[in-house]
Amino acid sequence: MADQYDFGLVGLGVMGRNFILNVADHGFSSMGLDTDDEKVNALKAEGAHVNVNGSTDSVTFLGALKTPRKIMLLVPAGKPVDSVIETLLPNLEKGDIIIDGGNSYFEDTERRITYLEEKGIHFFGAGVSGGAKGARRGPSIMPGGNKEAYEHVRTIFEAASAKVNDEPCVEYMGRGSAGNYVKMVHNGIEYGLMQLISEIYDVAKKGIGYSNEKLAHLFDEWNRGELQSFLVEITAEIFKKKDDLTGKDLVDMILDKAKQKGTGKWTSQNAMDLGIPIPTVDAAVTMRAISALKDQRVDADAVYHTPSLGNDKPDAQTLEHALQFAYIVTYAQGMSQLAAASKEYNYGLNLETIAKIWRGGCIIRATLLEDIRKAFDKNPNLANLMLDDNFVKTLKTIEGDARIVVQFAVGSGIPVAGLASAVSYFDAFRSGNLPLNLIQAQRDHFGSHTYERTDREGIFHTEW
Amino acid sequence: MADQYDFGLVGLGVMGRNFILNVADHGFSSMGLDTDDEKVNALKAEGAHVNVNGSTDSVTFLGALKTPRKIMLLVPAGKPVDSVIETLLPNLEKGDIIIDGGNSYFEDTERRITYLEEKGIHFFGAGVSGGAKGARRGPSIMPGGNKEAYEHVRTIFEAASAKVNDEPCVEYMGRGSAGNYVKMVHNGIEYGLMQLISEIYDVAKKGIGYSNEKLAHLFDEWNRGELQSFLVEITAEIFKKKDDLTGKDLVDMILDKAKQKGTGKWTSQNAMDLGIPIPTVDAAVTMRAISALKDQRVDADAVYHTPSLGNDKPDAQTLEHALQFAYIVTYAQGMSQLAAASKEYNYGLNLETIAKIWRGGCIIRATLLEDIRKAFDKNPNLANLMLDDNFVKTLKTIEGDARIVVQFAVGSGIPVAGLASAVSYFDAFRSGNLPLNLIQAQRDHFGSHTYERTDREGIFHTEW
Repeated sequence: MADQYDFGLVGLGVMGRNFILNVADHGFSSMGLDTDDEKVNALKAEGAHVNVNGSTDSVTFLGALKTPRKIMLLVPAGKPVDSVIETLLPNLEKGDIIIDGGNSYFEDTERRITYLEEKGIHFFGAGVSGGAKGARRGPSIMPGGNKEAYEHVRTIFEAASAKVNDEPCVEYMGRGSAGNYVKMVHNGIEYGLMQLISEIYDVAKKGIGYSNEKLAHLFDEWNRGELQSFLVEITAEIFKKKDDLTGKDLVDMILDKAKQKGTGKWTSQNAMDLGIPIPTVDAAVTMRAISALKDQRVDADAVYHTPSLGNDKPDAQTLEHALQFAYIVTYAQGMSQLAAASKEYNYGLNLETIAKIWRGGCIIRATLLEDIRKAFDKNPNLANLMLDDNFVKTLKTIEGDARIVVQFAVGSGIPVAGLASAVSYFDAFRSGNLPLNLIQAQRDHFGSHTYERTDREGIFHTEW
Repeated sequence: MADQYDFGLVGLGVMGRNFILNVADHGFSSMGLDTDDEKVNALKAEGAHVNVNGSTDSVTFLGALKTPRKIMLLVPAGKPVDSVIETLLPNLEKGDIIIDGGNSYFEDTERRITYLEEKGIHFFGAGVSGGAKGARRGPSIMPGGNKEAYEHVRTIFEAASAKVNDEPCVEYMGRGSAGNYVKMVHNGIEYGLMQLISEIYDVAKKGIGYSNEKLAHLFDEWNRGELQSFLVEITAEIFKKKDDLTGKDLVDMILDKAKQKGTGKWTSQNAMDLGIPIPTVDAAVTMRAISALKDQRVDADAVYHTPSLGNDKPDAQTLEHALQFAYIVTYAQGMSQLAAASKEYNYGLNLETIAKIWRGGCIIRATLLEDIRKAFDKNPNLANLMLDDNFVKTLKTIEGDARIVVQFAVGSGIPVAGLASAVSYFDAFRSGNLPLNLIQAQRDHFGSHTYERTDREGIFHTEW
């Protein structure tokens, strides 16, 4: 079977198996590699109808691939990636291409690119989003690296990716680790949207008294409107799901401690390094951390009371508008981070392209992304989505409802870190004057850190 | 002048000169080193009345110090610290002690400790807070490193530090980089408090219409009550200060772009690594980043309007309580980070001691710190300040006012990222049940990430 397969994939877990079957379905003969016999056999069984094969031996695997070899890794980020690279390296040839499809940290990708380019091997970081189903039926793919080498994998990725209006949800993102970076910010936005949905759920349930049934209905309805998005869609499904063990609504049986795997945290930490504000993502990361402190929360619940400052209960449309407002603001934060990162790391990102390939396949896919795409098509240098005419119009219409929901939640003791951060980000952004003149005065007072003035150029210091 | 000086200091900028004069004032003969002739001469002139000397030559400097040498560095963090170490190293002897008094990143300090311990030199990271005046008249000092070696510098630091009830505002903090870490979190809290004060200023000025004169009066009054603190004190002074150039109130002439030097950002980034929520510090870091986007803010100001959702204007006492509430919550966040860091990095921190040495000398000094000290004296393992009986009582009394101010600001379009984050942190912390069960359901739905249940142990996955 030498030199006969178009595509190789290392790591035959759920994601890997699904992705290689997806590729094979589109007519590309494919070869899988995994150290686990069972996984190789599972692939062969499930792929019996297409030209797919597998092996536990890397030499056999590499020998079976057409050159230049196109090898995708779907293994856990971190050491496993380096370890697979070292296993393959002795039998790779100049011009071969390795594509890391995991959530690798972008600085690791830069290191690997440098290491492998010296040996004539092209290394790509390609974010893949869409979960197990997306991998099988069409994910969104965000590849970054050597642009010429990308041409060798382009047709495979375009075939395997999700489609929106016949356009593939994959495109070359940019130089170096651009693919991993874009996927990282994708996940940061995902953290933000999930946190916002959970807050609306909390307000509706604890604050207004909606049942799960009513919530399912509401999210279904919202999914047919401006909020149409994968996360809103599955939220409706979640509220309908019964628990096999107790017969109750499953959502009520799930413990309120949310885990995280790091990409949201990296997004926030890197935004701070870039000096770019993404407070709604930060709030989402923080809320996952608070959720882990279950014992302390239960203790605190016993000693504090729940306030009621008597604001009127918001209606369903107010909730919808609040969520829509915060959705837009979260995408605005993420896109502004991508713009800054593109400059800082010389990625050459195109924000319109990114919005375009996020319209389908990925976890943050949403009808809204078509409007975002249009905004960056109209003005590629748009400083912030909130300055686009169409979004200005929309935000003006719904910002009041976001305020009402935050006011109600704050008065009712319901934590809305994400929604409140979206409102304060919006308000700070639309404040020509912020009170941080006082902070500069304080810094100059106690630390002689100097300040600028409103009426003339220069750096000033006062003996306070 | 061989072997005659008790204390050496490298870096004779304002902080360094002030600190060495402070030490000399307390009867310790001191020797300064700087490459800049003028700075050495300035030290000699200003220190003519005490036993202080200076040199531009490191060999002369080192030869003049009693062994084991006690050498403090007050040079900018980063490469300058390494460069001074390399300059001194050839002429140091085993047992000599170097104390880095700058805002060095704690991981750099760990590296330097390891590097120098191999050569028999003790390296300390010692946070120093109090600005130029504090350095001269008594700062708060946070030394960490080898405990036995600390005994050689203890009397000098105790003499030079601020005093509260005759107790020095310095104590051994813990192992390794503990001193830098504690100072980093000190600065994180400082960022939080400054942001909160600026928001109260914004609400009072834009939302209610207070003049600078009224604000000066208010902050003076608050500084005699529960909010007594250095930052409230200087805020009152700032509102009174006239501009030499225009005769107007100086605060109004200062540009609203706040700079940062990195310690606040590090605090947030490291808290995320530890999984510890400190959202009010995060919000402060974010607001400094937003403040830098002045041009975008001015553009946005032109297209959006300022809302008025008609909440009643809060009175002065409501503002005071809101600020007090958020002050407490910010310290609670910082102390919880220190507790987690102590475990993670094996520092052996004592939170009561930290609260004690922060009561005087440093930028975040406040009467409140005595209550914090008492809380950790009563229960060294207190999981969160908000669970201390006395703070429970206080917070219950004033939390409603914090909600009123946030509601008013949200309805008036005034960004209160810090205050709102304090309220949502409080509300999340006192929620036995958070809506993050939904987030776990979503994660399991799209990514098979599994979940825990409320009614039985184990890890579960559902085919949604």
